[in-house]
Amino acid sequence: MSDADTIAAIATAPGEGGVAIIRISGPRCFEIADEVFTCPTPLPSKRAGGTFAYGTVRDADGSAIDEALLLIMRAPHSYTREDTAEIQGHGGPVVARRVLQRVLSAGARAAEPGEFTKRAFLNGRLDLAQAEAVLDLIRARSDRAAVAALEQLEGALSSRINALYDKMLFVAGNIEATLDFSDQEIPENVLDPVVAELREALKDVDALLAGWTEGHLLREGATVVIAGKPNVGKSTLMNALLGRARAIVSPQPGTTRDTIEETLVVGGYPLVLIDTAGIRETDSDIEREGIRRAEQELSSADLCLYIVDASTGPDADDLATLSRLDPKKTIIVGNKSDIGATRWDSIIYTSSTKLIGLDKLRAEVVSRLDSGVPRSTQHAVISERHRALLLEAKRRAMDALKQLEDSAALPPLDLIAAQLREAVETIGLINGRVYHDSLLDAVFSRFCIGK
Amino acid sequence: MSDADTIAAIATAPGEGGVAIIRISGPRCFEIADEVFTCPTPLPSKRAGGTFAYGTVRDADGSAIDEALLLIMRAPHSYTREDTAEIQGHGGPVVARRVLQRVLSAGARAAEPGEFTKRAFLNGRLDLAQAEAVLDLIRARSDRAAVAALEQLEGALSSRINALYDKMLFVAGNIEATLDFSDQEIPENVLDPVVAELREALKDVDALLAGWTEGHLLREGATVVIAGKPNVGKSTLMNALLGRARAIVSPQPGTTRDTIEETLVVGGYPLVLIDTAGIRETDSDIEREGIRRAEQELSSADLCLYIVDASTGPDADDLATLSRLDPKKTIIVGNKSDIGATRWDSIIYTSSTKLIGLDKLRAEVVSRLDSGVPRSTQHAVISERHRALLLEAKRRAMDALKQLEDSAALPPLDLIAAQLREAVETIGLINGRVYHDSLLDAVFSRFCIGK
Repeated sequence: MSDADTIAAIATAPGEGGVAIIRISGPRCFEIADEVFTCPTPLPSKRAGGTFAYGTVRDADGSAIDEALLLIMRAPHSYTREDTAEIQGHGGPVVARRVLQRVLSAGARAAEPGEFTKRAFLNGRLDLAQAEAVLDLIRARSDRAAVAALEQLEGALSSRINALYDKMLFVAGNIEATLDFSDQEIPENVLDPVVAELREALKDVDALLAGWTEGHLLREGATVVIAGKPNVGKSTLMNALLGRARAIVSPQPGTTRDTIEETLVVGGYPLVLIDTAGIRETDSDIEREGIRRAEQELSSADLCLYIVDASTGPDADDLATLSRLDPKKTIIVGNKSDIGATRWDSIIYTSSTKLIGLDKLRAEVVSRLDSGVPRSTQHAVISERHRALLLEAKRRAMDALKQLEDSAALPPLDLIAAQLREAVETIGLINGRVYHDSLLDAVFSRFCIGK
Repeated sequence: MSDADTIAAIATAPGEGGVAIIRISGPRCFEIADEVFTCPTPLPSKRAGGTFAYGTVRDADGSAIDEALLLIMRAPHSYTREDTAEIQGHGGPVVARRVLQRVLSAGARAAEPGEFTKRAFLNGRLDLAQAEAVLDLIRARSDRAAVAALEQLEGALSSRINALYDKMLFVAGNIEATLDFSDQEIPENVLDPVVAELREALKDVDALLAGWTEGHLLREGATVVIAGKPNVGKSTLMNALLGRARAIVSPQPGTTRDTIEETLVVGGYPLVLIDTAGIRETDSDIEREGIRRAEQELSSADLCLYIVDASTGPDADDLATLSRLDPKKTIIVGNKSDIGATRWDSIIYTSSTKLIGLDKLRAEVVSRLDSGVPRSTQHAVISERHRALLLEAKRRAMDALKQLEDSAALPPLDLIAAQLREAVETIGLINGRVYHDSLLDAVFSRFCIGK
């Protein structure tokens, strides 16, 4: 990577804080740091190893831009494995931008989103699944999501993908080896252990695919829609779950028109809680638009809390709406249970005003979300990208297996070998053992600048 | 400060970024850092001097929380002049909070807003005016504001306050010395050099007070209100100045109702630009409320851009409104000048749709704001707090001077000495040569946590 240019960016979150870091990486980084920085002690670059000094970032004319700490790390002992300098200055947006501009004018190039991590990947510090985990860790919205991301960063997924890659490569290699023989020459039963290994690999693929639901819920959060007829207490329930008066509530039916979204964490899952307009026949255009939006949210939700009046239980209108909902994704909540409740099975009774039944409701939400999540602690969460690649690898591997098992004819080993080779390459795209520019662009463009 | 406790906080801006810093300061900081951090190399605290290492932040049960850099600085070579540790981890809100929680559970106390800087002040690293400059630098909204804040951080204001303090102390001390003599014993003309020095000190106070306007404009920004009758193109002008379609514009008079605020930087001044409802007689309650708000904004604005239709010039309604405005704070803008303009003096002609005249308007805005700002490059900007203290010191010093100059009677030297001593103490409050707890609370509570 010695021919790479030197990149720089603000590495801390935007906005006001105590400290901001301007990160510089690449062959010219010490030269640039020494040009913009002065200190009473010897410059860090003139001293041995990784080190730091307190001093002043100065403009080309010598005027001070900021007081700062300059920290240097020598290749390969840095995040990018390149020579890296970090200027820790005051955490103001304008002053941090001024320091960055000075660094750019001294010869650095503004880094692209994720470019530091991309260099870490290209220089072998991280594989691609680990690089993606860096982003997941930054974006994590719950403790559980942060733990899952860190496990992936530490290689929990990578080691399993590597093992799968090796297994599939063994299978593909053995099939390819048979191509050197003519059909008559292939020893009997030589394919049996290969087929057994392929079946094992497919089990591994399925085990990995099971990590998608949890990964999806932890990354994107579960969408939980609160629905029901007007005036059953949807907004009151939302406020009770949030612990604050987010939605306007009134005794008047049809108070909520816009859908109201809020996030909260329940059982380690980041939830997007959506309060909707009550569903009923109405003459009001505004209310009808609200109801249309409510039904739209319902159709794409991970979970629906369908609220009914506990004192009466579901009526014909409720039952009509419920019949259109997926029972696995629907929790029926009997609200206003403090007023009186007709006991129905499979209804969770709550009183949002008296805060009764909310713990039970939360537990049921977690239980429903958990239902798609593997029980083993040995699982790894995967992303949508990983899932798509695993599904493609699975399709090819299944196809190969089917042809190998078809005893009616001599298997077309050259086609099977090509199919398996594709499956191997596809798995390699997950952790970057195989990669191409557009893959890297797709992965790293989702990063923030400065990481 | 060896009996201070150990404090910790997230020092970077909140939100998602590449890197977050958790800062720990105080006597137990290395002990706490060593408890939460593991690395393959010797721990930084076990090595000489300030140093850093890459490793893992771990929970009490050994499970990983984040991969991070641990950097230590030994007292007095740190921001607080105490032993300080910085954990640089991934810049995600949840993961940074997890690292902080781990540090707190290991024995640190959550830092109050500004507590690191307060310790830097108490330990003599910064005086109070410099500490305030740290906040100004973080909050700076323009290059010019950042430069002014850095100058103050580097002591531009402190050195002048110190000189003033010493001058006033010399005066007060000389007056106090005469109290040892009886009235008859005071040598003739002994007070003359003292009075001369007091006059010099008062000149210094006035020179310092002149730095308030600029300081105020740079810190709080100048409020620039766009006003005028309906449909003269106020929102179009706002959009033209911003360079984007922020406000909804339509050919219909009365389109803007709510006041719309946006910030931009012109000539180094951060401006808060406020678009208002057109002023006219109306039957609409909503529009009338908008007009009431427009007039409220006008009364407190630093500057008003009063828009008239250039093709007609100001009419009787315009003149009625203009007569209520301060001419020094009002720029009359003749908009739609591309349609046709009756030439009036003292009107700046623009066409917001054709982007004509905007540079001239910007220059006039800067010129009006500059009119209250000293020309010398030797000035320092001051804050509202500094101004209040300088005004109080001035009042006391003026009072003392008046009594010293009153030749009709023997001056009441004991009262004058007391008045001057109060003036000295008041000046000392600016840079913290004199301080008390409630002063420090007032200054540092405005800081962000982590600085």
